Amino acid sequence: MSKTEHRHAIGVDFGGTSVKIALVDDRGNIAARERIITEHVKDRDEWLSAVCGAIDTLKGDTPITGVGVGVPGFVDFDRGYIYDLPNVPGWNGVPLADLLEQRLQVPVRIDNDVNAMALGECTFGAGRTYQHAVFVTLGTGVGGALMINNQLYRGAYSMAGEIGHVSIDMNGRVSPQGKGGVEQYVGNRRIIERTVEALEKGRASMIDELVKGDRSLITPKTVKDAADKGDPLAMEILDFITDCIATAFASIAYVLQPQAFIIGGGVAQEADMMFDLIRLHIEERLSPHFYKRLEIKPAELGPDAGMIGCATLGLIK
Amino acid sequence: MSKTEHRHAIGVDFGGTSVKIALVDDRGNIAARERIITEHVKDRDEWLSAVCGAIDTLKGDTPITGVGVGVPGFVDFDRGYIYDLPNVPGWNGVPLADLLEQRLQVPVRIDNDVNAMALGECTFGAGRTYQHAVFVTLGTGVGGALMINNQLYRGAYSMAGEIGHVSIDMNGRVSPQGKGGVEQYVGNRRIIERTVEALEKGRASMIDELVKGDRSLITPKTVKDAADKGDPLAMEILDFITDCIATAFASIAYVLQPQAFIIGGGVAQEADMMFDLIRLHIEERLSPHFYKRLEIKPAELGPDAGMIGCATLGLIK
Repeated sequence: MSKTEHRHAIGVDFGGTSVKIALVDDRGNIAARERIITEHVKDRDEWLSAVCGAIDTLKGDTPITGVGVGVPGFVDFDRGYIYDLPNVPGWNGVPLADLLEQRLQVPVRIDNDVNAMALGECTFGAGRTYQHAVFVTLGTGVGGALMINNQLYRGAYSMAGEIGHVSIDMNGRVSPQGKGGVEQYVGNRRIIERTVEALEKGRASMIDELVKGDRSLITPKTVKDAADKGDPLAMEILDFITDCIATAFASIAYVLQPQAFIIGGGVAQEADMMFDLIRLHIEERLSPHFYKRLEIKPAELGPDAGMIGCATLGLIK
Repeated sequence: MSKTEHRHAIGVDFGGTSVKIALVDDRGNIAARERIITEHVKDRDEWLSAVCGAIDTLKGDTPITGVGVGVPGFVDFDRGYIYDLPNVPGWNGVPLADLLEQRLQVPVRIDNDVNAMALGECTFGAGRTYQHAVFVTLGTGVGGALMINNQLYRGAYSMAGEIGHVSIDMNGRVSPQGKGGVEQYVGNRRIIERTVEALEKGRASMIDELVKGDRSLITPKTVKDAADKGDPLAMEILDFITDCIATAFASIAYVLQPQAFIIGGGVAQEADMMFDLIRLHIEERLSPHFYKRLEIKPAELGPDAGMIGCATLGLIK
């Protein structure tokens, strides 16, 4: 397949530790890729030079329709403007689209990384057949993005999709974002805390064996491995976590009635059991009119989802 | 203002006890109205004849762009088809748009009554300046409808906006729609139950005086009147109810980031205090990024909202 048969775009997945850049075609295939380690670039100017240099190398003679950049934080999509990247210093109030367009002379779109991933999954991945879908990342926190009528819906001020703050308990755990947000119960750290608390109370579990007694080594994967082997404590914890997720999903389903929830991110990758449990609990929590028409699916694009999604932002017709 | 300067449509607000029909212009003004008592019509054929007769009388020589019908139940908007009206027997599986179009020879749109009201409020009422708004009815139950990009968003299968089933407590009150749905805490009947329970436990309150000791006369309005006069029990109940509403609203705001919530229906009509309390509790439950840009407003079209909203469905360009 020659390059000229397809449109191409560049995706820039701007993470805290590295910037992953790819040339992607309009079927979602990566043609070439590059990676820049964040700590190797001194400041924003060096970042811009390194990224633009990598883009020039990657595209070579291939014409591109645009560049999409996904960033870990808050943006104004319409203006291509970064408000704030909570975990990356030096990027408050940056008109990144303008800065890149001046150097690259192609259209540049900036969005937050979860929106970019959702766009990729809903164009080329697990959501490609749906018009209305909710994309969710389960990992350190819980993120989300909404596809409505085949388009990302960003809300009134580019901040929609904050699924992690949907309350599952009006008197629950307090955070700066409110009370009882589902993220306060199902994030990676909460899974670990919950497990350690139970073990410290003397609950018997094979988890101690799996980490050879060093509880600082417990990860969400440890809990899932133990649950796969039938460990009652691990199963109880997974049951609780998935019921919390199901509670938030059911609320969202009653409001939006999407065709599907598509789950990406660390927690969800390797866990069929998680999906079975989430489906089970959602069925308990939704009327059949809503449940029988709702799919709960894992994301399909894997570790390249970020780059592909960012490039999708740049695949401008 | 002569009738020919404006487009006109007919709104048919199909309720359990009566059918309210109006000729409405494209500024949302009612030019003429009619009412049919449901128990005066024997069956569906009589209903159709009575409604079509009233429409002919109302419109006279005025050209109309269409007819909009709002019904208390589940519809397929695209097909103009009624699935089921839970409180009106004899209307399961009725292709109402087709039946009316055959007789009237103008386009007919069918939607559920809350969607129709939301459309009216967002075109001519409290929501007219917003592109993204959530419309909520507080009354016997809690209903809702979503305006996204200036259009009603009906979800994948015409059932979006079921705000009453958003869970505020994952282990809360059980209903056929799940656990902890906000409607289980704030509906008219629950307000009354909660009040009577507290009184029966011996709580002192002026509510007993207001109903002259006959607790079967307690209504949500009794509670609001007592709260207005500073009654501690009534204030406590209103505080709880508004916090429940705020919990659901905050969850919805994090997902959709609308510009406004617009509240209609019985409970909300006469209660400034309710709005103040809802705002107070939402502020506690939302990050400032979301709260400071969110309006909470009462609906403006009053008892005619249904007819005006239905007619808006029929104001086809």
